[in-house]
Amino acid sequence: MTNAKPDVSAAFFRKMADAAAGETMPRFRQQGAVSNKLKSGFDPVTEADREAEKAIRAVIKARYPDHGILGEEFGAENSSSRNIWVIDPIDGTRSFISGLPLWGTLVGLTVDGDAVAGMMAQPFTGELFYANESGSHYEGPNGKRSLATRKTVALEDATLCTTTPALFLGGRRDAYNRLESAVRLPRYGTDCYAYAMVAAGHVDLVVEVGLQSYDIVALIPIIEKAGGMVTNWEGGPAENGGEIIAAATPELHEAALKVLHEK
Amino acid sequence: MTNAKPDVSAAFFRKMADAAAGETMPRFRQQGAVSNKLKSGFDPVTEADREAEKAIRAVIKARYPDHGILGEEFGAENSSSRNIWVIDPIDGTRSFISGLPLWGTLVGLTVDGDAVAGMMAQPFTGELFYANESGSHYEGPNGKRSLATRKTVALEDATLCTTTPALFLGGRRDAYNRLESAVRLPRYGTDCYAYAMVAAGHVDLVVEVGLQSYDIVALIPIIEKAGGMVTNWEGGPAENGGEIIAAATPELHEAALKVLHEK
Repeated sequence: MTNAKPDVSAAFFRKMADAAAGETMPRFRQQGAVSNKLKSGFDPVTEADREAEKAIRAVIKARYPDHGILGEEFGAENSSSRNIWVIDPIDGTRSFISGLPLWGTLVGLTVDGDAVAGMMAQPFTGELFYANESGSHYEGPNGKRSLATRKTVALEDATLCTTTPALFLGGRRDAYNRLESAVRLPRYGTDCYAYAMVAAGHVDLVVEVGLQSYDIVALIPIIEKAGGMVTNWEGGPAENGGEIIAAATPELHEAALKVLHEK
Repeated sequence: MTNAKPDVSAAFFRKMADAAAGETMPRFRQQGAVSNKLKSGFDPVTEADREAEKAIRAVIKARYPDHGILGEEFGAENSSSRNIWVIDPIDGTRSFISGLPLWGTLVGLTVDGDAVAGMMAQPFTGELFYANESGSHYEGPNGKRSLATRKTVALEDATLCTTTPALFLGGRRDAYNRLESAVRLPRYGTDCYAYAMVAAGHVDLVVEVGLQSYDIVALIPIIEKAGGMVTNWEGGPAENGGEIIAAATPELHEAALKVLHEK
Protein backbone atom coordinates (compact mmCIF):
# COMPACT_ATOMS: atom_id res chain seq x y z
CA MET A 1 0.00 0.00 0.00
CA THR A 2 1.35 3.42 -0.94
CA ASN A 3 1.59 6.28 1.44
CA ALA A 4 1.21 9.02 -1.19
CA LYS A 5 0.16 12.40 0.09
CA PRO A 6 -3.64 12.39 0.00
CA ASP A 7 -5.58 15.42 -1.20
CA VAL A 8 -8.17 15.89 1.49
CA SER A 9 -11.50 16.98 0.04
CA ALA A 10 -13.79 19.65 1.42
CA ALA A 11 -16.42 16.95 1.74
CA PHE A 12 -14.13 14.90 3.99
CA PHE A 13 -13.48 17.88 6.26
CA ARG A 14 -17.23 18.51 6.45
CA LYS A 15 -17.78 14.85 7.34
CA MET A 16 -15.31 15.03 10.22
CA ALA A 17 -16.75 18.37 11.37
CA ASP A 18 -20.29 17.00 11.31
CA ALA A 19 -19.30 13.85 13.19
CA ALA A 20 -17.66 15.94 15.90
CA ALA A 21 -20.52 18.45 16.07
CA GLY A 22 -22.95 15.60 16.65
CA GLU A 23 -21.13 14.96 19.93
CA THR A 24 -20.13 18.50 20.96
CA MET A 25 -23.21 20.56 20.19
CA PRO A 26 -25.74 18.62 22.31
CA ARG A 27 -23.36 19.12 25.25
CA PHE A 28 -22.43 22.77 24.64
CA ARG A 29 -24.03 25.07 27.23
CA GLN A 30 -25.38 22.10 29.17
CA GLN A 31 -24.62 22.02 32.86
CA GLY A 32 -22.99 19.04 34.50
CA ALA A 33 -20.91 17.87 31.56
CA VAL A 34 -17.61 19.06 32.99
CA SER A 35 -15.13 16.79 34.69
CA ASN A 36 -11.57 17.44 35.82
CA LYS A 37 -8.76 15.75 33.93
CA LEU A 38 -6.31 16.46 36.73
CA LYS A 39 -7.09 16.44 40.41
CA SER A 40 -4.99 19.54 40.92
CA GLY A 41 -5.52 22.74 39.01
CA PHE A 42 -8.26 23.29 36.48
CA ASP A 43 -7.95 21.24 33.32
CA PRO A 44 -11.51 20.53 32.31
CA VAL A 45 -12.38 17.96 29.75
CA THR A 46 -15.85 16.97 28.85
CA GLU A 47 -17.62 13.91 27.65
CA ALA A 48 -18.02 15.94 24.48
CA ASP A 49 -14.25 15.94 24.04
CA ARG A 50 -13.98 12.18 24.30
CA GLU A 51 -17.02 11.33 22.20
CA ALA A 52 -16.07 13.81 19.49
CA GLU A 53 -12.59 12.33 19.19
CA LYS A 54 -14.08 8.83 18.89
CA ALA A 55 -16.39 10.07 16.14
CA ILE A 56 -13.56 11.72 14.21
CA ARG A 57 -11.35 8.65 14.53
CA ALA A 58 -14.13 6.51 13.08
CA VAL A 59 -14.47 8.81 10.05
CA ILE A 60 -10.72 8.79 9.43
CA LYS A 61 -10.35 5.03 9.81
CA ALA A 62 -13.18 4.37 7.37
CA ARG A 63 -11.51 6.47 4.67
CA TYR A 64 -7.79 6.08 5.44
CA PRO A 65 -7.43 2.76 7.30
CA ASP A 66 -3.62 2.66 6.92
CA HIS A 67 -3.03 6.16 8.32
CA GLY A 68 -1.90 6.91 11.84
CA ILE A 69 -3.84 9.00 14.37
CA LEU A 70 -2.69 11.18 17.28
CA GLY A 71 -5.45 12.61 19.44
CA GLU A 72 -5.62 14.62 22.64
CA GLU A 73 -7.90 12.18 24.39
CA PHE A 74 -6.88 8.73 23.17
CA GLY A 75 -3.22 9.12 22.18
CA ALA A 76 -1.40 7.61 19.22
CA GLU A 77 -2.14 4.64 17.03
CA ASN A 78 -0.40 3.29 13.91
CA SER A 79 2.25 5.93 14.48
CA SER A 80 4.72 4.39 12.02
CA SER A 81 2.57 5.59 9.12
CA ARG A 82 3.94 8.48 7.05
CA ASN A 83 0.44 10.02 7.25
CA ILE A 84 -0.68 11.02 10.73
CA TRP A 85 -4.00 12.69 11.56
CA VAL A 86 -3.71 14.96 14.57
CA ILE A 87 -6.90 15.67 16.52
CA ASP A 88 -7.99 18.11 19.21
CA PRO A 89 -11.72 17.45 19.47
CA ILE A 90 -12.36 20.62 21.52
CA ASP A 91 -9.56 23.16 21.47
CA GLY A 92 -10.55 25.77 24.05
CA THR A 93 -12.32 23.68 26.66
CA ARG A 94 -12.36 26.73 28.97
CA SER A 95 -14.32 28.65 26.34
CA PHE A 96 -16.56 25.63 25.88
CA ILE A 97 -17.48 25.40 29.55
CA SER A 98 -17.98 29.17 29.72
CA GLY A 99 -20.49 29.13 26.87
CA LEU A 100 -18.23 31.13 24.54
CA PRO A 101 -18.24 30.20 20.83
CA LEU A 102 -14.44 30.49 20.43
CA TRP A 103 -13.58 26.81 20.85
CA GLY A 104 -13.08 24.63 17.83
CA THR A 105 -12.60 21.11 16.58
CA LEU A 106 -9.12 20.74 15.11
CA VAL A 107 -8.01 18.00 12.75
CA GLY A 108 -4.75 18.22 10.84
CA LEU A 109 -2.81 15.85 8.60
CA THR A 110 0.95 15.49 8.68
CA VAL A 111 2.94 13.70 6.00
CA ASP A 112 6.45 12.78 7.13
CA GLY A 113 5.96 15.23 9.99
CA ASP A 114 4.88 18.23 7.89
CA ALA A 115 1.38 19.64 8.32
CA VAL A 116 -0.19 19.57 4.85
CA ALA A 117 -3.93 19.87 5.46
CA GLY A 118 -6.21 20.80 8.32
CA MET A 119 -9.50 22.14 9.58
CA MET A 120 -10.91 24.25 12.40
CA ALA A 121 -14.65 23.79 12.81
CA GLN A 122 -16.86 25.91 15.07
CA PRO A 123 -20.26 24.28 15.01
CA PHE A 124 -22.18 26.86 17.06
CA THR A 125 -21.38 29.63 14.58
CA GLY A 126 -21.54 27.12 11.72
CA GLU A 127 -18.04 27.89 10.51
CA LEU A 128 -15.45 25.68 8.87
CA PHE A 129 -11.91 26.89 8.12
CA TYR A 130 -9.87 24.35 6.18
CA ALA A 131 -6.82 23.93 3.97
CA ASN A 132 -5.94 21.30 1.40
CA GLU A 133 -3.94 21.19 -1.82
CA SER A 134 -6.21 23.78 -3.44
CA GLY A 135 -5.54 26.40 -0.75
CA SER A 136 -7.17 27.77 2.38
CA HIS A 137 -10.94 28.05 2.51
CA TYR A 138 -13.89 29.21 4.60
CA GLU A 139 -17.49 28.11 4.82
CA GLY A 140 -19.82 29.98 7.14
CA PRO A 141 -23.30 31.36 7.64
CA ASN A 142 -22.67 33.96 4.95
CA GLY A 143 -21.26 31.60 2.34
CA LYS A 144 -17.92 30.33 1.10
CA ARG A 145 -14.73 32.11 0.24
CA SER A 146 -10.97 31.71 0.05
CA LEU A 147 -8.92 32.75 3.04
CA ALA A 148 -6.16 35.35 2.78
CA THR A 149 -4.19 36.98 5.55
CA ARG A 150 -4.06 40.76 5.98
CA LYS A 151 -0.92 42.32 4.50
CA THR A 152 0.25 43.84 7.78
CA VAL A 153 4.03 44.18 7.95
CA ALA A 154 4.59 46.57 10.90
CA LEU A 155 4.02 45.68 14.55
CA GLU A 156 2.46 49.08 15.24
CA ASP A 157 -0.37 48.18 12.83
CA ALA A 158 -0.90 44.68 14.19
CA THR A 159 -3.60 43.04 16.28
CA LEU A 160 -2.08 40.38 18.55
CA CYS A 161 -4.02 37.55 20.19
CA THR A 162 -3.14 35.19 22.98
CA THR A 163 -5.25 33.07 25.30
CA THR A 164 -4.00 34.76 28.46
CA PRO A 165 -0.76 36.51 29.46
CA ALA A 166 -0.72 34.13 32.43
CA LEU A 167 0.58 31.46 30.01
CA PHE A 168 3.94 33.20 29.87
CA LEU A 169 6.27 32.58 32.80
CA GLY A 170 9.58 34.22 33.65
CA GLY A 171 11.55 35.53 30.69
CA ARG A 172 8.79 34.51 28.33
CA ARG A 173 6.46 36.90 30.12
CA ASP A 174 8.95 39.71 29.57
CA ALA A 175 9.20 38.73 25.91
CA TYR A 176 5.42 38.66 25.56
CA ASN A 177 5.07 42.01 27.30
CA ARG A 178 7.60 43.59 24.94
CA LEU A 179 5.63 42.32 21.97
CA GLU A 180 2.31 43.43 23.42
CA SER A 181 3.72 46.92 23.95
CA ALA A 182 4.82 47.05 20.31
CA VAL A 183 1.49 46.18 18.69
CA ARG A 184 -1.58 48.27 18.03
CA LEU A 185 -4.15 46.08 19.74
CA PRO A 186 -3.82 43.03 22.00
CA ARG A 187 -6.74 40.63 22.49
CA TYR A 188 -7.03 37.81 25.02
CA GLY A 189 -9.16 34.72 25.39
CA THR A 190 -9.28 33.66 21.78
CA ASP A 191 -8.07 30.03 21.74
CA CYS A 192 -7.91 28.42 18.27
CA TYR A 193 -10.32 31.01 16.91
CA ALA A 194 -7.48 33.55 16.85
CA TYR A 195 -5.50 31.46 14.36
CA ALA A 196 -8.55 31.22 12.12
CA MET A 197 -8.85 35.02 12.30
CA VAL A 198 -5.22 35.35 11.16
CA ALA A 199 -5.99 33.18 8.14
CA ALA A 200 -9.12 35.23 7.46
CA GLY A 201 -7.33 38.57 7.62
CA HIS A 202 -8.87 40.01 10.81
CA VAL A 203 -5.99 39.46 13.22
CA ASP A 204 -2.26 39.67 12.48
CA LEU A 205 -0.39 37.75 15.18
CA VAL A 206 -0.93 34.94 17.65
CA VAL A 207 1.72 34.12 20.25
CA GLU A 208 1.42 31.28 22.73
CA VAL A 209 3.53 28.87 24.76
CA GLY A 210 3.08 25.34 26.02
CA LEU A 211 1.12 24.10 23.02
CA GLN A 212 0.85 20.45 22.13
CA SER A 213 1.07 19.10 18.59
CA TYR A 214 -2.68 18.66 18.48
CA ASP A 215 -3.19 22.33 19.40
CA ILE A 216 -1.41 23.63 16.32
CA VAL A 217 -0.97 21.07 13.49
CA ALA A 218 -4.43 21.64 11.98
CA LEU A 219 -3.93 25.41 12.00
CA ILE A 220 -0.54 25.53 10.26
CA PRO A 221 -1.73 24.85 6.70
CA ILE A 222 -4.84 27.03 7.17
CA ILE A 223 -2.61 30.03 7.90
CA GLU A 224 0.27 29.19 5.58
CA LYS A 225 -1.91 28.55 2.53
CA ALA A 226 -3.63 31.88 3.28
CA GLY A 227 -0.29 33.70 3.06
CA GLY A 228 0.88 33.66 6.68
CA MET A 229 3.61 31.91 8.65
CA VAL A 230 3.52 29.60 11.68
CA THR A 231 6.73 28.60 13.45
CA ASN A 232 8.11 28.08 16.91
CA TRP A 233 9.89 31.01 18.62
CA GLU A 234 13.19 29.86 17.10
CA GLY A 235 11.74 30.14 13.61
CA GLY A 236 11.63 26.36 13.22
CA PRO A 237 8.74 23.99 12.44
CA ALA A 238 5.63 24.40 14.61
CA GLU A 239 4.35 20.85 14.22
CA ASN A 240 5.72 19.73 17.58
CA GLY A 241 4.04 22.55 19.51
CA GLY A 242 5.82 24.40 22.30
CA GLU A 243 6.33 28.16 21.88
CA ILE A 244 4.36 29.18 18.81
CA ILE A 245 4.06 32.32 16.71
CA ALA A 246 1.61 32.75 13.84
CA ALA A 247 1.85 35.83 11.65
CA ALA A 248 -0.08 37.31 8.75
CA THR A 249 3.08 37.99 6.70
CA PRO A 250 6.75 36.92 6.70
CA GLU A 251 7.77 40.52 7.45
CA LEU A 252 5.56 40.71 10.51
CA HIS A 253 6.75 37.29 11.64
CA GLU A 254 10.37 38.49 11.48
CA ALA A 255 9.59 41.73 13.32
CA ALA A 256 7.74 39.89 16.09
CA LEU A 257 10.46 37.26 16.57
CA LYS A 258 13.01 40.05 16.84
CA VAL A 259 11.08 41.68 19.69
CA LEU A 260 10.53 38.35 21.45
CA HIS A 261 14.28 37.71 21.45
CA GLU A 262 15.49 41.20 22.44
CA LYS A 263 17.81 41.28 25.40
CA MET B 1 -49.10 62.35 27.69
CA THR B 2 -48.43 59.69 30.31
CA ASN B 3 -45.03 58.31 31.06
CA ALA B 4 -46.23 54.93 32.31
CA LYS B 5 -43.66 52.15 32.32
CA PRO B 6 -43.97 50.45 28.94
CA ASP B 7 -43.83 46.69 28.61
CA VAL B 8 -41.37 46.16 25.83
CA SER B 9 -42.37 43.24 23.61
CA ALA B 10 -40.10 40.56 22.23
CA ALA B 11 -41.14 41.74 18.78
CA PHE B 12 -39.91 45.25 19.52
CA PHE B 13 -36.53 43.95 20.68
CA ARG B 14 -36.29 41.87 17.50
CA LYS B 15 -37.14 44.93 15.44
CA MET B 16 -34.33 46.95 17.03
CA ALA B 17 -31.92 44.02 16.70
CA ASP B 18 -32.77 43.55 13.03
CA ALA B 19 -32.42 47.26 12.29
CA ALA B 20 -28.97 47.29 13.88
CA ALA B 21 -27.90 44.05 12.21
CA GLY B 22 -28.78 45.53 8.84
CA GLU B 23 -26.00 48.05 9.43
CA THR B 24 -23.47 46.00 11.40
CA MET B 25 -23.44 42.67 9.58
CA PRO B 26 -22.54 43.92 6.09
CA ARG B 27 -19.55 45.67 7.69
CA PHE B 28 -18.44 42.86 10.03
CA ARG B 29 -15.21 41.25 8.83
CA GLN B 30 -14.87 43.76 6.02
CA GLN B 31 -11.52 45.51 5.73
CA GLY B 32 -11.26 49.27 5.69
CA ALA B 33 -14.29 50.05 7.79
CA VAL B 34 -12.32 51.08 10.86
CA SER B 35 -11.66 54.69 11.77
CA ASN B 36 -10.12 56.14 14.88
CA LYS B 37 -12.35 58.06 17.26
CA LEU B 38 -9.35 59.63 18.96
CA LYS B 39 -6.13 60.60 17.24
CA SER B 40 -4.15 59.28 20.18
CA GLY B 41 -4.49 55.77 21.49
CA PHE B 42 -6.72 53.13 19.94
CA ASP B 43 -10.44 53.76 20.24
CA PRO B 44 -11.89 52.37 17.05
CA VAL B 45 -15.36 53.15 15.97
CA THR B 46 -16.83 52.05 12.73
CA GLU B 47 -19.36 53.35 10.30
CA ALA B 48 -21.33 50.33 11.46
CA ASP B 49 -21.48 51.83 14.95
CA ARG B 50 -22.89 55.12 13.73
CA GLU B 51 -25.33 53.70 11.20
CA ALA B 52 -26.60 51.07 13.64
CA GLU B 53 -27.33 53.71 16.27
CA LYS B 54 -29.23 55.79 13.72
CA ALA B 55 -31.28 52.74 12.76
CA ILE B 56 -32.11 51.90 16.38
CA ARG B 57 -33.05 55.51 17.15
CA ALA B 58 -35.46 55.49 14.20
CA VAL B 59 -37.17 52.34 15.48
CA ILE B 60 -37.52 53.78 18.99
CA LYS B 61 -38.81 57.15 17.82
CA ALA B 62 -41.45 55.53 15.63
CA ARG B 63 -42.86 53.54 18.53
CA TYR B 64 -42.13 55.79 21.55
CA PRO B 65 -41.90 59.35 20.20
CA ASP B 66 -42.05 60.96 23.65
CA HIS B 67 -39.23 58.91 25.16
CA GLY B 68 -35.67 60.10 25.59
CA ILE B 69 -32.60 58.48 24.04
CA LEU B 70 -28.99 58.31 25.16
CA GLY B 71 -26.56 56.72 22.70
CA GLU B 72 -22.82 56.18 22.54
CA GLU B 73 -22.45 57.82 19.16
CA PHE B 74 -25.01 60.64 19.09
CA GLY B 75 -25.51 61.57 22.74
CA ALA B 76 -28.73 62.50 24.53
CA GLU B 77 -32.04 63.78 23.27
CA ASN B 78 -35.32 64.49 25.09
CA SER B 79 -33.51 63.72 28.31
CA SER B 80 -36.25 65.14 30.55
CA SER B 81 -38.44 62.12 29.76
CA ARG B 82 -38.94 59.61 32.56
CA ASN B 83 -38.27 56.88 29.95
CA ILE B 84 -34.79 56.87 28.48
CA TRP B 85 -33.50 54.34 25.94
CA VAL B 86 -29.80 53.74 26.33
CA ILE B 87 -27.92 52.48 23.26
CA ASP B 88 -24.50 51.02 22.54
CA PRO B 89 -24.78 50.01 18.89
CA ILE B 90 -21.59 47.91 19.01
CA ASP B 91 -20.35 47.04 22.47
CA GLY B 92 -16.95 45.45 21.95
CA THR B 93 -15.63 47.34 18.94
CA ARG B 94 -12.22 45.71 19.47
CA SER B 95 -13.84 42.28 19.09
CA PHE B 96 -15.73 43.59 16.06
CA ILE B 97 -12.59 44.74 14.26
CA SER B 98 -10.81 41.49 15.19
CA GLY B 99 -13.53 39.36 13.59
CA LEU B 100 -14.60 37.85 16.94
CA PRO B 101 -18.33 37.23 17.49
CA LEU B 102 -18.34 38.50 21.09
CA TRP B 103 -19.53 42.05 20.39
CA GLY B 104 -23.17 42.93 20.77
CA THR B 105 -25.81 45.56 20.17
CA LEU B 106 -27.08 46.85 23.51
CA VAL B 107 -30.34 48.69 24.05
CA GLY B 108 -31.76 49.26 27.52
CA LEU B 109 -34.71 51.20 28.89
CA THR B 110 -34.57 53.17 32.11
CA VAL B 111 -37.66 54.51 33.88
CA ASP B 112 -36.84 57.21 36.40
CA GLY B 113 -33.24 56.08 36.19
CA ASP B 114 -33.85 52.38 36.85
CA ALA B 115 -33.04 49.84 34.13
CA VAL B 116 -36.28 47.91 33.54
CA ALA B 117 -35.80 46.25 30.15
CA GLY B 118 -32.97 45.56 27.77
CA MET B 119 -31.44 43.47 25.03
CA MET B 120 -28.07 42.19 23.86
CA ALA B 121 -28.13 41.06 20.25
CA GLN B 122 -25.28 39.19 18.51
CA PRO B 123 -26.26 39.00 14.86
CA PHE B 124 -23.40 36.81 13.62
CA THR B 125 -24.36 33.98 15.98
CA GLY B 126 -28.03 34.88 15.59
CA GLU B 127 -28.57 35.35 19.30
CA LEU B 128 -30.88 37.68 21.19
CA PHE B 129 -30.79 37.97 24.99
CA TYR B 130 -33.54 40.24 26.35
CA ALA B 131 -35.52 41.09 29.46
CA ASN B 132 -38.93 42.67 29.88
CA GLU B 133 -41.75 42.45 32.43
CA SER B 134 -42.18 38.72 31.74
CA GLY B 135 -38.60 37.89 32.66
CA SER B 136 -35.29 37.22 30.96
CA HIS B 137 -35.26 35.38 27.65
CA TYR B 138 -33.04 33.91 24.94
CA GLU B 139 -33.55 33.30 21.25
CA GLY B 140 -30.77 31.62 19.29
CA PRO B 141 -29.92 29.13 16.58
CA ASN B 142 -31.14 26.28 18.77
CA GLY B 143 -34.45 27.86 19.77
CA LYS B 144 -35.92 29.91 22.58
CA ARG B 145 -35.70 29.55 26.33
CA SER B 146 -35.85 31.45 29.59
CA LEU B 147 -32.58 32.63 31.08
CA ALA B 148 -31.53 31.62 34.60
CA THR B 149 -28.20 32.19 36.29
CA ARG B 150 -26.15 29.33 37.72
CA LYS B 151 -26.59 28.90 41.48
CA THR B 152 -22.92 29.39 42.29
CA VAL B 153 -22.39 30.84 45.76
CA ALA B 154 -18.66 30.25 46.44
CA LEU B 155 -15.82 32.08 44.71
CA GLU B 156 -13.79 28.87 44.41
CA ASP B 157 -16.51 27.46 42.14
CA ALA B 158 -16.87 30.59 40.03
CA THR B 159 -15.89 31.51 36.47
CA LEU B 160 -14.94 35.20 36.30
CA CYS B 161 -14.83 37.28 33.12
CA THR B 162 -13.32 40.64 32.35
CA THR B 163 -12.31 42.29 29.10
CA THR B 164 -8.66 42.65 30.09
CA PRO B 165 -6.80 43.03 33.40
CA ALA B 166 -5.19 46.11 31.82
CA LEU B 167 -8.47 47.94 32.56
CA PHE B 168 -7.63 47.95 36.26
CA LEU B 169 -5.15 50.59 37.40
CA GLY B 170 -3.44 51.04 40.77
CA GLY B 171 -5.42 49.74 43.73
CA ARG B 172 -8.14 48.46 41.45
CA ARG B 173 -5.62 46.13 39.84
CA ASP B 174 -4.73 44.76 43.25
CA ALA B 175 -8.43 44.30 43.98
CA TYR B 176 -8.99 42.55 40.67
CA ASN B 177 -5.96 40.32 41.18
CA ARG B 178 -7.24 39.26 44.62
CA LEU B 179 -10.57 38.32 43.09
CA GLU B 180 -8.98 36.48 40.18
CA SER B 181 -6.87 34.45 42.63
CA ALA B 182 -10.00 33.47 44.54
CA VAL B 183 -12.03 32.11 41.63
CA ARG B 184 -11.88 28.80 39.82
CA LEU B 185 -11.47 30.07 36.27
CA PRO B 186 -10.78 33.56 34.89
CA ARG B 187 -11.56 34.41 31.27
CA TYR B 188 -10.56 37.53 29.33
CA GLY B 189 -11.74 39.26 26.19
CA THR B 190 -15.44 38.71 26.58
CA ASP B 191 -17.00 42.20 26.31
CA CYS B 192 -20.80 42.28 26.68
CA TYR B 193 -21.01 38.60 25.83
CA ALA B 194 -19.79 37.76 29.33
CA TYR B 195 -22.83 39.40 30.92
CA ALA B 196 -25.11 37.42 28.65
CA MET B 197 -23.29 34.25 29.75
CA VAL B 198 -23.95 35.17 33.41
CA ALA B 199 -27.67 35.47 32.64
CA ALA B 200 -27.55 32.16 30.75
CA GLY B 201 -25.83 30.27 33.57
CA HIS B 202 -22.43 29.61 31.96
CA VAL B 203 -20.34 32.25 33.75
CA ASP B 204 -20.68 33.44 37.34
CA LEU B 205 -19.01 36.84 37.65
CA VAL B 206 -18.07 39.83 35.52
CA VAL B 207 -15.96 42.62 36.95
CA GLU B 208 -15.01 45.76 35.02
CA VAL B 209 -14.13 49.40 35.52
CA GLY B 210 -14.59 52.56 33.49
CA LEU B 211 -17.93 51.57 32.02
CA GLN B 212 -20.35 54.11 30.61
CA SER B 213 -24.10 53.98 31.16
CA TYR B 214 -24.61 52.64 27.67
CA ASP B 215 -22.19 49.76 28.36
CA ILE B 216 -24.29 48.35 31.18
CA VAL B 217 -27.93 49.57 31.31
CA ALA B 218 -29.21 47.01 28.80
CA LEU B 219 -27.51 44.17 30.64
CA ILE B 220 -28.82 44.91 34.15
CA PRO B 221 -32.38 43.61 33.67
CA ILE B 222 -31.19 40.64 31.60
CA ILE B 223 -29.07 39.44 34.54
CA GLU B 224 -31.34 40.53 37.39
CA LYS B 225 -34.47 38.96 35.92
CA ALA B 226 -32.44 35.75 35.44
CA GLY B 227 -31.64 35.65 39.17
CA GLY B 228 -28.36 37.57 39.32
CA MET B 229 -27.21 40.94 40.64
CA VAL B 230 -25.52 43.91 38.95
CA THR B 231 -24.19 46.81 41.03
CA ASN B 232 -21.23 49.14 41.24
CA TRP B 233 -18.33 48.19 43.48
CA GLU B 234 -20.00 50.01 46.39
CA GLY B 235 -23.08 47.83 46.05
CA GLY B 236 -25.11 50.72 44.63
CA PRO B 237 -27.01 51.08 41.34
CA ALA B 238 -25.06 50.18 38.20
CA GLU B 239 -27.06 52.36 35.81
CA ASN B 240 -24.47 55.15 35.80
CA GLY B 241 -21.60 52.81 34.91
CA GLY B 242 -18.16 53.13 36.50
CA GLU B 243 -16.87 50.14 38.46
CA ILE B 244 -19.28 47.29 37.81
CA ILE B 245 -19.79 43.82 39.23
CA ALA B 246 -22.30 41.30 37.90
CA ALA B 247 -22.88 38.09 39.79
CA ALA B 248 -24.95 34.94 39.32
CA THR B 249 -26.29 35.01 42.89
CA PRO B 250 -26.55 37.51 45.77
CA GLU B 251 -24.24 35.30 47.87
CA LEU B 252 -21.53 35.31 45.21
CA HIS B 253 -21.97 39.05 44.74
CA GLU B 254 -21.39 39.61 48.44
CA ALA B 255 -18.35 37.32 48.52
CA ALA B 256 -16.78 39.03 45.50
CA LEU B 257 -17.37 42.55 46.83
CA LYS B 258 -15.74 41.53 50.10
CA VAL B 259 -12.59 40.40 48.29
CA LEU B 260 -12.50 43.53 46.12
CA HIS B 261 -12.57 45.71 49.24
CA GLU B 262 -10.07 43.78 51.39
CA LYS B 263 -7.22 45.85 52.78
